[in-house]
Amino acid sequence: MEALRFAFFEVSYLLYPFSPINMNPESISLASLSRVPDLIRSRHPLVHCLTNDVVKNFTANTLLAVQAAPAMVEHPTEAGEFAAIADAMLANVGTLIEEQIHAIRKAVDAANRAGKPWVLDPVAAGAITLRTEFARELCRMNPAIIRGNASEIMALAGVSGQGRGVDSGNASDEAVDTAMRLAKSASCVVMVTGEVDYITDGKDLFGCLNGNLLLTRVTGVGCAQGALAAACLAVCDHPMEAALASAVIMGIAGEMAAAVSPRPGSFQIALLDALDSIDADVILGKGRLKID
Amino acid sequence: MEALRFAFFEVSYLLYPFSPINMNPESISLASLSRVPDLIRSRHPLVHCLTNDVVKNFTANTLLAVQAAPAMVEHPTEAGEFAAIADAMLANVGTLIEEQIHAIRKAVDAANRAGKPWVLDPVAAGAITLRTEFARELCRMNPAIIRGNASEIMALAGVSGQGRGVDSGNASDEAVDTAMRLAKSASCVVMVTGEVDYITDGKDLFGCLNGNLLLTRVTGVGCAQGALAAACLAVCDHPMEAALASAVIMGIAGEMAAAVSPRPGSFQIALLDALDSIDADVILGKGRLKID
Amino acid sequence: MEALRFAFFEVSYLLYPFSPINMNPESISLASLSRVPDLIRSRHPLVHCLTNDVVKNFTANTLLAVQAAPAMVEHPTEAGEFAAIADAMLANVGTLIEEQIHAIRKAVDAANRAGKPWVLDPVAAGAITLRTEFARELCRMNPAIIRGNASEIMALAGVSGQGRGVDSGNASDEAVDTAMRLAKSASCVVMVTGEVDYITDGKDLFGCLNGNLLLTRVTGVGCAQGALAAACLAVCDHPMEAALASAVIMGIAGEMAAAVSPRPGSFQIALLDALDSIDADVILGKGRLKID
Repeated sequence: MEALRFAFFEVSYLLYPFSPINMNPESISLASLSRVPDLIRSRHPLVHCLTNDVVKNFTANTLLAVQAAPAMVEHPTEAGEFAAIADAMLANVGTLIEEQIHAIRKAVDAANRAGKPWVLDPVAAGAITLRTEFARELCRMNPAIIRGNASEIMALAGVSGQGRGVDSGNASDEAVDTAMRLAKSASCVVMVTGEVDYITDGKDLFGCLNGNLLLTRVTGVGCAQGALAAACLAVCDHPMEAALASAVIMGIAGEMAAAVSPRPGSFQIALLDALDSIDADVILGKGRLKID
Repeated sequence: MEALRFAFFEVSYLLYPFSPINMNPESISLASLSRVPDLIRSRHPLVHCLTNDVVKNFTANTLLAVQAAPAMVEHPTEAGEFAAIADAMLANVGTLIEEQIHAIRKAVDAANRAGKPWVLDPVAAGAITLRTEFARELCRMNPAIIRGNASEIMALAGVSGQGRGVDSGNASDEAVDTAMRLAKSASCVVMVTGEVDYITDGKDLFGCLNGNLLLTRVTGVGCAQGALAAACLAVCDHPMEAALASAVIMGIAGEMAAAVSPRPGSFQIALLDALDSIDADVILGKGRLKID
Repeated sequence: MEALRFAFFEVSYLLYPFSPINMNPESISLASLSRVPDLIRSRHPLVHCLTNDVVKNFTANTLLAVQAAPAMVEHPTEAGEFAAIADAMLANVGTLIEEQIHAIRKAVDAANRAGKPWVLDPVAAGAITLRTEFARELCRMNPAIIRGNASEIMALAGVSGQGRGVDSGNASDEAVDTAMRLAKSASCVVMVTGEVDYITDGKDLFGCLNGNLLLTRVTGVGCAQGALAAACLAVCDHPMEAALASAVIMGIAGEMAAAVSPRPGSFQIALLDALDSIDADVILGKGRLKID
């Protein structure tokens, strides 16, 4: 498997572990995605999360629920050192303070030098100037996946959206064209989460139809999905597959949790339980992809 | 309704959206409070929370449970910009660090300039010097509501209480006179939470008898109530009504959750579920006010 | 009881409230440990937690579940002042930033001057240079208890282990000899948590066999156990007893929670409920010590 990946991506591998340009979209299917939960469970990828204060606990518990190993290391000196140790990284700009800005820059540099893939989550880009600029800077630093809602993705690409705080004022469909352009210009996979989650490398486009509205009633589900995408990056052959796997896993878990509880408190707990229970059969049985 | 409020408060409206001095206490009743949950559900007020690290997640989930939109923005540059975008703000001094002190000052300034109401939560004022001084400084910056336990309110007003860390050593009754004086001197509404929650604008006094002791066994319920009060400020005509609505909503939710679970872990989850389920009928059926 | 303790430890008491060297290990038994939950419930010890961002909420809820009083005070100026007010302290290096490093130094100094016992939790020591050095510095500052997994304890003592982020790559048994040496050199009690929890003062060794694997599937259980150990320090005669009590209480709670739920989301909630329900009878009935 490793050898095969190396054969396909030989040249780019020296620069970066993934090559979105050369992906074969036909290799992605529910069958390929269905292997991801067990891969995470057997390899326990160490995911370095530089993320916001509101969601650190839920993010760590989300990763533990799928048996990935979370680590939050925030001191600028430590973050750089740790990024090279971890298997994948998340840079989420939700509650920036100066020290975290330095830490994220150092960690991204170190991850890139060590060939470790990372996810950019531009929380509330567009709503506020400083983070919009910083998220755009990060955009140019070679993320493997950018995950945001429609308004955030549009803001990142310089298209004016309707963001309001951390919530999107735009449906995910509205951001598809922008996401494809952004993926091309940033040479990465862009994931627009919403009623339908769209995933694109600038050439191909996948949709994930799984999900439930209650996922928007628990703080940090989107942020945790970014961390889950990082865990998937550590075990998948391609960021497109990793992004889509994270969308399918979180979407199905949301559906399973909503079947257990219609209210947000108990839904949150049921969501973690559902993440723990998802395996290949569940994905094959419940996954709903939309392939254009 | 808006026109009516404008007519009553014409002069002060130019300076500040609320005028505690001119409130007509007879307009507040369970009937008026019962409209608040649906107002929040339909308007989704964006509540900017500058709050402590321990409770950010629970605070955000509390706001989402009532369908308000939480946002935590902490960088001094961002906090100022964001305060003007949000509908209401919370300044909670629970875990101050230098950068947050700057951020709160900037956010309060911006909120005041933009005419956005804000809540001050002087966590552990009295117990420690720095935050006591800072909370007093904020007190002079025109909060719409100050929410604290008896010891905190007494410390803020320079009356020596029996605070011990974040817990009150005084019953809420003991702080009523102090609260009325503080409300008058700070020209705001003061809310003393405890076995009975007291709410005063310095002239009139309301009590809320709803609640359950288990509310003290979950960290951050008081802090989350400050955030809920900010959400109520965004949809209520008067801070007195907003403070009382937040007390009634949280108190009833506590009673409903205690009926589901007698232990603190599952009580916390049931509390969020209860907040999600409270509507006008629940408030009319369970609300218990004490009007002096 | 107080008089008795004073009689035994007369000389050292003037310097420090506990004297690991002079402990009589025969005084520790399930019967002595079984008193601890009710002591905490009646005295509500105020536990000052300087801990990491990921686990602050869960740590506070853990302390509230056993009816201790949590407080997180992080500003360097405040942390020093507050350490002297609190009954016990936790210094956990999980997500250090510069300001927290200063705060921990000041708080430890103040706790030592005020004769308040404190727990050191060297999270991920060994994995990253800066925190390893800082944890070693704290090690020399007279902690009452050091709590870590096997890899962390080995790293602290300069023995190379197999740590990977925050997880141990070593079984707790492997660290027993190192723990005994570290306890001797640091004149404190060392607690190695794992499948078996080992507690030693460098001379005697106790093991706690209680626990469940699901405890590793919830973020911050180890960190919360450090805080629980601090709460126990505030009511126990000796840090050996305090450490062992915290191991027995958390271990039994894990077993009780696993009996309620096999999945990590609902397990976490059941764990807090179990902590609330543990009393002397539960400890006498379920506690499993291993005394060498």
